[in-house]
This record gives sequence, C-alpha cells and structure tokens, in this order.
Amino acid sequence: MTLEIVSSNKSFGGWHKRYRHRSSTLNCDMVFAVYLPPQAEQGARLPVLYWLSGLTCTDENFMQKAGAQRLAAELGLIIVAPDTSPRGAEVPGDPDGAWDFGLGAGFYVNATQEPYARHYRMHDYVVHELPALIEENFPVSEKRGISGHSMGGHGALVCALRNPGRYQSISAFAPISNPMACPWGEKALGRYLGNDRSRWREWDACALLAETNEKLPILVDQGDRDDFLVNQLKPEALQAAARSAGYPLTLRLQPGYDHSYYFIASFIDDHLRHHSEALSAH
Amino acid sequence: MTLEIVSSNKSFGGWHKRYRHRSSTLNCDMVFAVYLPPQAEQGARLPVLYWLSGLTCTDENFMQKAGAQRLAAELGLIIVAPDTSPRGAEVPGDPDGAWDFGLGAGFYVNATQEPYARHYRMHDYVVHELPALIEENFPVSEKRGISGHSMGGHGALVCALRNPGRYQSISAFAPISNPMACPWGEKALGRYLGNDRSRWREWDACALLAETNEKLPILVDQGDRDDFLVNQLKPEALQAAARSAGYPLTLRLQPGYDHSYYFIASFIDDHLRHHSEALSAH
Repeated sequence: MTLEIVSSNKSFGGWHKRYRHRSSTLNCDMVFAVYLPPQAEQGARLPVLYWLSGLTCTDENFMQKAGAQRLAAELGLIIVAPDTSPRGAEVPGDPDGAWDFGLGAGFYVNATQEPYARHYRMHDYVVHELPALIEENFPVSEKRGISGHSMGGHGALVCALRNPGRYQSISAFAPISNPMACPWGEKALGRYLGNDRSRWREWDACALLAETNEKLPILVDQGDRDDFLVNQLKPEALQAAARSAGYPLTLRLQPGYDHSYYFIASFIDDHLRHHSEALSAH
Repeated sequence: MTLEIVSSNKSFGGWHKRYRHRSSTLNCDMVFAVYLPPQAEQGARLPVLYWLSGLTCTDENFMQKAGAQRLAAELGLIIVAPDTSPRGAEVPGDPDGAWDFGLGAGFYVNATQEPYARHYRMHDYVVHELPALIEENFPVSEKRGISGHSMGGHGALVCALRNPGRYQSISAFAPISNPMACPWGEKALGRYLGNDRSRWREWDACALLAETNEKLPILVDQGDRDDFLVNQLKPEALQAAARSAGYPLTLRLQPGYDHSYYFIASFIDDHLRHHSEALSAH
C-alpha cells in the first residue's frame, strides 16, 4: 500500500504528518494524520493511540485544536487521526445535504444498505486497514489505544468492545453512548444498517457492554453544559449499562464544560496518561 | 462602551470568551477573544498578554490552535486576541481580493491614505481602545505584555517600541521584522501610508530599535524551515538592528519548524513564561 505525503509540520520535537492513500475497504482515497513524537526518530517502537473525531470533522480538528502533541511528545505516544467518513465525488452523502449523516458522518459502522454499502465501512477501515498501514510504515509497538469525541467517542467504544484483544486502552469524550436511542444514531443506523433495530445492537456501546468478557477500564469525560448531553449523548445510559455488566467505567461529569475542543483540550492530558499507562505496561 | 458576548467556553478551569463591540477608532464592529484563567474569578487582578495574529487570521486562530490556555491557567495570565483588521461591508479590502492586504491584513498601522484612513487604524485600536475596554471590564492589573505571529509579530514589536512604558514584556513568533524591505510590507505600507518611504520608518521594528531608549528584552522564535523566512521575515535584519543599538534581543532559530501554529504551539509555553515573569515582577 502506497502512502503519499500531503504535509509535514515539526511539532514539539516530533512531526505532524498527513498522508493520502487508496483505501480498499472504503473504495476511495483517504487522508489521515499521524503525530510522531521525537522518540520515533530514535528507533523506539511506540504504542499508538487512534483518535476518532466527531460529526463534520476531518483528521485536522484534533491535531490542530486538542493540544495533544505536547504530552504525546513527552510520553512517546504516536497518535493517528483518520477522517470521519469516506470521501470523494463518487461517495454518496446525505440526500438533503445534512451534516449529521453521510460525508463527515460515517459513524464507524459497516453499512449494509444501498447506496452506502460500497463506501461506508469505517469500522473495518479504522480497526483493520488503517492499523495495517500504520504498522507497515511507522515504528509502532503491538499496543493500540482508541479514543474519540462525540460520534468518535461512540466509534472508540464500539470498535474496542467489538474487537476484544485488539486494543489495550479505551477512552472517550462526550460519546454518543446509546445511538439506538438518540436522533443522530437512529438516523445513521437506520440508513446505514436498515430498519431492523436488532441489527443496531452490535453498534451500540450500551448493548455491547452487556456482552463483552474483556473488561478494559474506560475513561469518559463529559461536560455538564454540553448542548447535546440530554438528547444525543446519554452518558447515564452508559453508566447504567456498565454498572449492570460490572464493567469498569470512570465517567467524569465536568462542570461548566461544553461540547467543543476547548473541553477536549482541558482534559486531553488525563486521557493520554490513561492510554500511555495501559499501553506501556507489559 | 458596551460589550456583547458572542460565545463562552470553559477552558482549563477558566473561560474563553468572545465579545463584539463598536469600535470608535476603526468605525466598525469588532470581535475579540479573551482567555480568563481561573484566578480571574477569585478576585485577583491579573496581567494581560495581548496577542496579535498574522495575515488572514481572526481572534480564533490563536485561541483554537496555540494551546496557550493550559499554562495561562497555571500562571494566572489573561490573554486578549483582537482581530487583524477592521471588518464589515463598509470596510474597503484589497481591490484585487488578495489576502495580504486589507481585510485580515491591517498591519497594525494607522492608515493615512484613502480609502483606508477611516477604518484602518489598528495601531490605535490595539494600543489604546482595546486595552481601555479590557481594563474597564475585566479584573486586570496595570501590567501589559504583547506578542504575535508574522504580521502580528511585526505588530507586537512596533506597538511596544513606539509606546515606551505601555508594555512590560515583548515577544514574537516569526515576525515580519523589516516591513520596509519585504514584499508584504512594501505593499501594505505603500497603500496605507503612501509612497513616501520616510513615513514607513515609524512602523518598522528595525528602524524603531535604533531609536528607542526603553530596552525591554525581546524573545523571538523563528523556524528555519519557514517558507517566508528569506523573502518576508528577515530575522537577520532584526538581529543586526538590535546588535547595533545594543538592544537585548534573544532570537532563537528553531531547526525544522515552519510558519504554522504547530510551530507556535511548540514554543508558546516559553513565551508565556517570558511574559509572566516580567509582568509579575514588582
């Protein structure tokens, strides 16, 4: 697989790089970003944190706004940020041009419905194709963490819970915790997966928590002034599911914080340490 | 003077807020951003760092991308980020629609030429009107620092050097050091100030360094892979001017770094400490 470099910026002694490649999973060209801390040039094999962004985002939002590079450089953590959907003229978006479905809104599922099934396979891209590419091209260890924000928080939880053994650490910021039961999720799951709601369960963190045997501790931060808290994010559903499954979840309600990257930046260091500790353990 | 709140985001225990107000200096509505660290809610009177952004920017670039809030919250430093030019339908821009003059490119001068003289008075806005507004509405001390990037680095140097006693600390990232002798500067100074180049000297950091009696130490960071280094920024001219004037300048050439906010974020902590130390001294 060939990577074409798009841009390169030195950052905290390491490098922020963007690459374009042809995705065989998504049947289109994709761009992703990688932050390589200074240790990557010194021959170390480093753990990787995959960051999944939210609705409307690309690889750029996290890399520009989260302020993660400072501590990642210190911890020796590689961060990989994929795009949030397939892209390109041939990829169908929302028929009404809405921002909560289609382009920028892949929801990290494998679509089964037309016209989406050919391109919208973000789960397989994030869990399989992209890590294979990273592991072929960068000095990475076998350790993988996953985190994300909002739709990407949902993606992080679901990718990890569906694939025991694949990740060694999980966290999320303001995840869509129970997509089967919120407007964003119902719209996306209905169109990508069809109207049979029993098929949605395998893409819902609350449903998956009840079934998994692997119990990696999950760290979730959620602002209590988040405009989407009540209708879309439903952290209380995640907490109830974790409690009933005996799953180790640390849910922190952060007073005064909203849904923005100002919130993410304020707590990203705690998440990087959460991942680094798990990924550096032997 | 009335401030209208535009947005408010909690950030590192403090607040990132944006305000709109009518500027009597610029004869238009202006938006600025302020970061208020947690100490601002605890009754302290805090020093203020004014940040001037570069070509094409608004108040948002620095607040979203520099990662300054973490350390500002720790140091108890208020940061104020104005826009980079007057704005609005009535404000004339570049006649050819270029990005290096007019809207987003006020160059922190007081224009004397038509049709710019009525609105393009960014020096007086940044040095007088905005601080008066800040000092009336926020819990600030008498101490002011100033910094900026590229065109805003030029602005920071020139605002401080023209106004002895007004600022207690100065720094810059990749400043346009000698605008009289680079294409961006020649275009802007020629149009805002007219073709008499003797009038440009009072807006050129290299020329001002030779004349000032106040000698506040200046910290400048400059990436050595900056695409604008040779033709536009000319840090060697600043260094020569400082040397010949006996002016205390610390110019750090940072290997591998470019002109982006990835560069700024990598070194913003050093600048915040540089300012905080000077502004907290008695």
